[in-house]
Amino acid sequence: MSNIPLSGARLWDSLMEMARIGATPKGGCNRQALTPLDGEGRALLARWGAEIGLSLTTDRLGNMALRRPGHDPSRRPVAIGSHLDTQPTGGKFDGVLGVLAGLEVMRALHEAGAETEAPLLLINWTNEEGARFSPPMMGSGAAMGAFAERQVLDTRDPEGARFGDALAAIGWAGEADPAALRELEAYFEVHIEQGPVLEREGLDIGVVTHALAQQWFDVTVTGEESHAGGAMSHRRDALVAAAGLVEAVEAIAREAGGDARATVGRLAVEPSSRNVVPSRATFSVDFRNGDEAALDRMAEALRERAQEVAARRGVAVEVAPFWAFPQTPFDATLAQRLRDAAAARGIPFCDMPTGIGHDAVYVARAVPSVMIFTPCLGGISHNEAESITPAQAEAGLLVLADAVLATAGIARA
Amino acid sequence: MSNIPLSGARLWDSLMEMARIGATPKGGCNRQALTPLDGEGRALLARWGAEIGLSLTTDRLGNMALRRPGHDPSRRPVAIGSHLDTQPTGGKFDGVLGVLAGLEVMRALHEAGAETEAPLLLINWTNEEGARFSPPMMGSGAAMGAFAERQVLDTRDPEGARFGDALAAIGWAGEADPAALRELEAYFEVHIEQGPVLEREGLDIGVVTHALAQQWFDVTVTGEESHAGGAMSHRRDALVAAAGLVEAVEAIAREAGGDARATVGRLAVEPSSRNVVPSRATFSVDFRNGDEAALDRMAEALRERAQEVAARRGVAVEVAPFWAFPQTPFDATLAQRLRDAAAARGIPFCDMPTGIGHDAVYVARAVPSVMIFTPCLGGISHNEAESITPAQAEAGLLVLADAVLATAGIARA
Repeated sequence: MSNIPLSGARLWDSLMEMARIGATPKGGCNRQALTPLDGEGRALLARWGAEIGLSLTTDRLGNMALRRPGHDPSRRPVAIGSHLDTQPTGGKFDGVLGVLAGLEVMRALHEAGAETEAPLLLINWTNEEGARFSPPMMGSGAAMGAFAERQVLDTRDPEGARFGDALAAIGWAGEADPAALRELEAYFEVHIEQGPVLEREGLDIGVVTHALAQQWFDVTVTGEESHAGGAMSHRRDALVAAAGLVEAVEAIAREAGGDARATVGRLAVEPSSRNVVPSRATFSVDFRNGDEAALDRMAEALRERAQEVAARRGVAVEVAPFWAFPQTPFDATLAQRLRDAAAARGIPFCDMPTGIGHDAVYVARAVPSVMIFTPCLGGISHNEAESITPAQAEAGLLVLADAVLATAGIARA
Repeated sequence: MSNIPLSGARLWDSLMEMARIGATPKGGCNRQALTPLDGEGRALLARWGAEIGLSLTTDRLGNMALRRPGHDPSRRPVAIGSHLDTQPTGGKFDGVLGVLAGLEVMRALHEAGAETEAPLLLINWTNEEGARFSPPMMGSGAAMGAFAERQVLDTRDPEGARFGDALAAIGWAGEADPAALRELEAYFEVHIEQGPVLEREGLDIGVVTHALAQQWFDVTVTGEESHAGGAMSHRRDALVAAAGLVEAVEAIAREAGGDARATVGRLAVEPSSRNVVPSRATFSVDFRNGDEAALDRMAEALRERAQEVAARRGVAVEVAPFWAFPQTPFDATLAQRLRDAAAARGIPFCDMPTGIGHDAVYVARAVPSVMIFTPCLGGISHNEAESITPAQAEAGLLVLADAVLATAGIARA
């Protein structure tokens, strides 16, 4: 346990102060990436960093890295990061908690006059949310080599504005090479869970061991249009067939067990008339699993059920791959440091995967990384109603600080 | 069996001639009610009627009645009718077959110099399709008292044109009282089945014994939005719950047996994003049954399944009535005449209900009525690909003529 003067109250005050930038009437935040409000948020972070002597480097994608020197300049920095940008109707904590918890670690070290062996880095990644410029996690993804820098800079928003121009317009296009952020000893990210598990299990910390692999599909069921007044006997109803498959999709995840997830988020029917038996139903399938082989078996099970339904109902079913994302393991040593920290402080925790994309998932491609989840009210996120308690934020801070300091090493307490 | 010189070939030629008015490039017809093309179709029918001495009366809603006198002027007319209007991408036979089969009965009587005891009436009902002016079956519905005449005349099309004005503009606003058409001894209507049963069973005639009662519902399932990356354990997925109910809707019809039908024609999901567990699913339910009590039991079964799914999945399910239409029996004596006629001619037939609305269903509210179904290719209708054979049309004609003459009586053959 670190004995630096970590302050949950100071962290909370900073969360509330940051939340004023882009505050919405319903208590949320609209501080989308590369808007003037994003610029304001960045400036506030830079000021807070300067107040405690952190040196700021901004790269060509706008990723901010605030450095605190270590005793051993030959060591790579131990980094803490997340993002300050929000969804258009986002909350006060998604992303921000991770950045400001990192800031609080730096502040407490500063206040104590302590020095770590390895340098520390506090990172604010550009455009994690992907709300205005898509896809999400652009800054971290490009820094880690998942996207080409040029491709990110040339991305357009729906109104045609260019990422690179918008970044320059708010004054946050730096000169550093984003790839330099691959040169880290370790990377830590605290984030609200964005799901209900911790809250419902009465736990304060989730030790995130891996990010689930994902396979997305488009399924098309083609039957035959007919009048709703016609007999049942000769129907080839695309929607009833699709309904069976929607239930099968859920059953496949339940049968797979473990951390399998399966979701049908979209479903459309044609011709969509009350008294016409549908000729066509299309739906999306989102399969996730921490085990790639198990994920492949889920996809295979979907194809089998599709064939079975097609044969039984005289419809055609096409299962087309749409997108895939590999399983990403987090670092086992870092995860154990989180467990040790939580256990030492008596904070109830569990291991869990993340089924949701985070900057850490890209960072983990190049850097030993781990994430700390903290509960959020009702699992609600990407919503102005997003809510956590000061105590929940503090628990995340304490476990983060202990694990970071255990990793970086203390030269002078 | 009547021995008047009925000609299937003449009927077919007239079908093809009428089909030229509003012919579409794909071989269908676009002769929507109250358009100039509808006026042309009406004028052709009037000319054909005049050629064989029929006297035309047009009522204030444009319903055309072509009368052939009977030997006994004290008897009410025996009527044959259907409609000449089509869907925008309709076929050549839906409605038209019924009108022109009636015309062919008149022509054969004329050619034979025969006289019936009761007068005969050939009716072309205004706006059966309801494509431009909604709802469908306006002319017959209003004549039988289901709609107020003023309400029909004041109906607007989507561009704001008024029914009464459009009718006057094509020159077919008459002066007769539509309610006079309730004063019939019997009403016969030949119509293509618009379903696949006769074709698949290898039958040429369907004796339509009744129109199914209908109950339509709107079902709303409310669950909880959550991220597709989140665990399965705490989900309240509105779409999976709805999928179970869509399957239940079909099962309810299969369990009810008989002539029960159940269709979910529309289904929509919110927020409709690939990686968001749906919070809301809404769908339509169309239940039909020839037995009103059995239909009530289907509705009750839906409510029960809805409660069961709601309890099991932690969602809310609302089942809201949307529309209902009572069961309509056709006349048993007339139906028996159709069976006798088909049997005498060796034409294979079966009894069947209509699950689809027709002018005869409204006429049956005031007049002993019956319908004759004939097969159509693949059950396809409301489509330019609508197709029947001359032999199928002729079978309908023969059964119609025999039953009409058996009802009206022959004064002089």
